Amino acid sequence: MAAAGFVSLVGAGPGSPDLLTLRGLQALAGARAVLFDELLDPGFQALFPPQAQCCPVGKRCGREGMPQEAINRLMVDLAGRGWRVVRLKGGDPLIFGRGGEEAEALQAAGVPFEVIPGVSALQAGAAAAGIPLTYRGVARRITLLEGHHLPDAEDTWRTLAQDGGTLAVYMGTRRAAEIAGRLVAHGAGPGTPVALIENALGPGQAATLSTLGKAAAGTLRPCTGGPGLLLAGPALLHRTHPESPHEPASALPGPFGETFAAGGGRQRRTG
Amino acid sequence: MAAAGFVSLVGAGPGSPDLLTLRGLQALAGARAVLFDELLDPGFQALFPPQAQCCPVGKRCGREGMPQEAINRLMVDLAGRGWRVVRLKGGDPLIFGRGGEEAEALQAAGVPFEVIPGVSALQAGAAAAGIPLTYRGVARRITLLEGHHLPDAEDTWRTLAQDGGTLAVYMGTRRAAEIAGRLVAHGAGPGTPVALIENALGPGQAATLSTLGKAAAGTLRPCTGGPGLLLAGPALLHRTHPESPHEPASALPGPFGETFAAGGGRQRRTG
Repeated sequence: MAAAGFVSLVGAGPGSPDLLTLRGLQALAGARAVLFDELLDPGFQALFPPQAQCCPVGKRCGREGMPQEAINRLMVDLAGRGWRVVRLKGGDPLIFGRGGEEAEALQAAGVPFEVIPGVSALQAGAAAAGIPLTYRGVARRITLLEGHHLPDAEDTWRTLAQDGGTLAVYMGTRRAAEIAGRLVAHGAGPGTPVALIENALGPGQAATLSTLGKAAAGTLRPCTGGPGLLLAGPALLHRTHPESPHEPASALPGPFGETFAAGGGRQRRTG
Repeated sequence: MAAAGFVSLVGAGPGSPDLLTLRGLQALAGARAVLFDELLDPGFQALFPPQAQCCPVGKRCGREGMPQEAINRLMVDLAGRGWRVVRLKGGDPLIFGRGGEEAEALQAAGVPFEVIPGVSALQAGAAAAGIPLTYRGVARRITLLEGHHLPDAEDTWRTLAQDGGTLAVYMGTRRAAEIAGRLVAHGAGPGTPVALIENALGPGQAATLSTLGKAAAGTLRPCTGGPGLLLAGPALLHRTHPESPHEPASALPGPFGETFAAGGGRQRRTG
């Protein structure tokens, strides 16, 4: 492949097009072809160059999209024409996606490529809900899991339950009761706060707060029923109420009903 | 505070100004004052509006900067003049920074604010070194620690050593021998790959790869001696070689000397 093009694996960020990086935008501007996740906000298409070939790939929730092997082959084929190709992926390419597999396919085919990182659901959920993921003297560790692939090992759950860090479960809202139940069963305090965050920093943003004990009893449900981020741990006690450019915090839907001790020792209702 | 301004806590990303988000850039464009971490790349200053008051705050490595309480007070004071203020923080505001404390201070003072997330060292290090942080069937979990505050609990180390996830230690390069030693002592295979990544995706980028066994013996050292990210775990076996816009992968400095089995079953030397 002497006249090989170039592929940029670009993290689109968590949803809103304005959470893309400047480097990602620059890669898009120079693209001859854009292969984008079907789930991406349609607003991204305004950032694609008018002359570029743009092709939706990947899966929609529950529906099969283009198989991964076909995506890999398409990237290699387009780069083989000497084209600059952007593979635009939700979130960060190397966290809970198949960016690693795509990079391997490009390397195996001799196609030069770069990876441009993106803001992940973890950061967007925290920013939307005003939740510090770490907090001095309170939480010094963060663990990322995926709701579709929760750990089996008892030791892992014991560490997650007792070590005082922040747990972040991607696509974790639908399994909130199970996750909370396992944490409590392995020693987490039932009063430990837990949050479900959907459509973080975008239209329809929603955050729902409760405690592990109540969530384990099945009373904590996501607002939209869609996928989202679950956060749990003592750092959530330091939650604040940032505004959102899309929906001010005071207008956030959802059953905010719990009372937490805030960082400064004040009691406030999160509703 | 009737004529309260507004504060944006903005994640600047991991170093290079072009890893800022579009939303962060927009916040800067509207700022009357910018309070920025002294450690930030000087290139960010080109993004500050010409008329804005710009003040370096925070710590340089090893040198004391403005105390946190003074930064909090300054944000509140400037917002009290009705100004739009950007507090520009390295990485993501809510991961291993004091963004949570700054948000609490703003809320306590009645200043409306938002949090704009940023790409964190985790994502930049992975992108620079071509390391997937998760990989289907190999690594389904990521744990973030800070080198200055490693866990004490034996159970935590046992889980980190044996659970097959990816470990990311911020500011972890200087304690590589200790971290690797504890992982091996708690059951991690001495052949498990480990990487030190400095100045990810920016000038002077360097990645150094080895195994936990060799790192525990003290033979793995960062190139620059400065702070950086440590990554360890089986996902590193799927490392690829992306190009960097600043320094192509083939020119990366550092003692790449280990042989790994790559994802496609090929053997290659990472040097």
